[in-house]
Amino acid sequence: MEKIAIIGTGLIGGSLGMALKKAKLKDVEIVAHDKEPSAAPKAVRKGAADKSSWNLLAAVDKASMVIIATPIMAIREVMEVIGPHLQPNCVVTDTGSSKVQVLEWADRYLPATVSFVGGHPMAGKELSGIDAAEATLFQGAAYCVIPSKKAPQEAVKSVVGLAEIAGAKPFFLDAQEHDSFVAAVSHLPIVLSSALVAATTGSPSWREMGRLAATGYRDVTRLASGDPEMNRDICLTNKENLVHWINTLIRELQEYRRLLTEANDKLGPAFVRAYEARQRWLKGSLEPTPEGQAFGEIPSVGERMAGLFIGDRLARRSKELMEGTDRKDQRKPGEQPPAKK
Amino acid sequence: MEKIAIIGTGLIGGSLGMALKKAKLKDVEIVAHDKEPSAAPKAVRKGAADKSSWNLLAAVDKASMVIIATPIMAIREVMEVIGPHLQPNCVVTDTGSSKVQVLEWADRYLPATVSFVGGHPMAGKELSGIDAAEATLFQGAAYCVIPSKKAPQEAVKSVVGLAEIAGAKPFFLDAQEHDSFVAAVSHLPIVLSSALVAATTGSPSWREMGRLAATGYRDVTRLASGDPEMNRDICLTNKENLVHWINTLIRELQEYRRLLTEANDKLGPAFVRAYEARQRWLKGSLEPTPEGQAFGEIPSVGERMAGLFIGDRLARRSKELMEGTDRKDQRKPGEQPPAKK
Repeated sequence: MEKIAIIGTGLIGGSLGMALKKAKLKDVEIVAHDKEPSAAPKAVRKGAADKSSWNLLAAVDKASMVIIATPIMAIREVMEVIGPHLQPNCVVTDTGSSKVQVLEWADRYLPATVSFVGGHPMAGKELSGIDAAEATLFQGAAYCVIPSKKAPQEAVKSVVGLAEIAGAKPFFLDAQEHDSFVAAVSHLPIVLSSALVAATTGSPSWREMGRLAATGYRDVTRLASGDPEMNRDICLTNKENLVHWINTLIRELQEYRRLLTEANDKLGPAFVRAYEARQRWLKGSLEPTPEGQAFGEIPSVGERMAGLFIGDRLARRSKELMEGTDRKDQRKPGEQPPAKK
Repeated sequence: MEKIAIIGTGLIGGSLGMALKKAKLKDVEIVAHDKEPSAAPKAVRKGAADKSSWNLLAAVDKASMVIIATPIMAIREVMEVIGPHLQPNCVVTDTGSSKVQVLEWADRYLPATVSFVGGHPMAGKELSGIDAAEATLFQGAAYCVIPSKKAPQEAVKSVVGLAEIAGAKPFFLDAQEHDSFVAAVSHLPIVLSSALVAATTGSPSWREMGRLAATGYRDVTRLASGDPEMNRDICLTNKENLVHWINTLIRELQEYRRLLTEANDKLGPAFVRAYEARQRWLKGSLEPTPEGQAFGEIPSVGERMAGLFIGDRLARRSKELMEGTDRKDQRKPGEQPPAKK
């Protein structure tokens, strides 16, 4: 019996647990822990784990894989506490939104006998907590996989397997790339949504004005309803990139303001460009990524995940097939992904 | 047989037509016209009108009500063309997103024998055109009613009736108020969405970065997929208010940037404030507005609309009941709504 420990049974941890349970992996037991004592038993009832443990060290004891799905600031503490107690070859992953910081913590607090492979599933919703969790939350979403320098290929594959069990598309990045990208497409929108709410609701006319706010306002401000503590932590662990992107956006708003007040019609073309760029993105986001395609050639997820955990011939077969795939995905442990910018 | 002419059978005109048809008003014929010759016949097939007319003047000939649902810049031209041909006592309304400009045009191009009552249903969606139209588009939405100074109460009531037939909540405003409010909650979000798309897709890393963009990015940028021509016209007809709100938002973004780089944790409380303000708005938006409640006391929509058009005892009953309601809605023609700020 191999053990997977999920630390933090909120929306993300709960949804991963549900996806794992749904995959019915043979000889795998999922144990949930949450610092809030009632949360992990609730996750068990919801079908996100086989059993719960109120004790963090008991939860990770002899685990083959530990998934840290806490708010990002808590990841450090969890690593510090569990580090000395993890069994050799344990694969530790997380689901945090910033990665440079998390990889530094892993390097500092986890022993050399375990492997850290960062993860970041690019999905979420307005609601948080186990009640909002669902097995299909990550279906079709990108799942960033950010191996630490020391992580062996087997560890990387097990996190890729986790992503695929969740129905997500694994996507390799280095931590710096990851943080700069998500600052733009994930963290900046959070600040933007919140700033729009602050600007409008701060108006003396808000009581009247708010009644006219409709679906457009609702959608653009949706991210302001995310967990405030999580939003703060995400921003604080990705400060420099985010400041860069706030500045870029302010310049863009100034540009729109200029086009608005100029006599010649440059505003129309600006809206056309934004329209077209978004349509291209919408269209593109539905197509499988090259990464996804490459991973499509390896054996089915259930086999790989099980193979990894039980160390049998499936793991060897998986490895052979992996080696036969596109060279671009043949990154050795510690090797940086090719520069993409 | 009374005639309602819908000029412009896109998403908004088409949806209003479908709601009117669904109400099965007695002795009312709905005639649709669109400058694109294939659009109005399509609206008839979709159930948004009884018949179509390829000729604008024939469409409005002997109409009791004309609903101008074209892009805002076309409203002026439509008014100029139809003005001399409207029958006396015709009620003209529109669905444009800015109102000061539209009321000026009405004053200039419509004859004194007809009544103009501006309208602005606060709903929409990413898709445009008759294919996206639906009878329930405005269900529960605010519907701004902005009477011209000369509009008699009967004309105002018929536009209120139109709003209620569409399932929307009528909401009285003067044009200046309207434009300043929608600049904040409707037009600023359009600019914001578009600026975010421009800032991110303009990055040299967009090709990689875009793959990580998920539901949050999708929602915050949704308005950038609105019709670019409409977005431009909306912004250009509400320039001063919009510039004010872009400036307010830039200041707010600068404030978030400052909180992000300061050592003490002021960022957390800022996210909490935005979170709470949005929850209050979400909660409040589900409650009926005082306006909605007041109008709830008048007879049912079908009766009022029909009464107005056929001028029978229902119209008198409607008037009596109207006079018996809350004084705040007893605005005389030409009287300004009470200051609300």
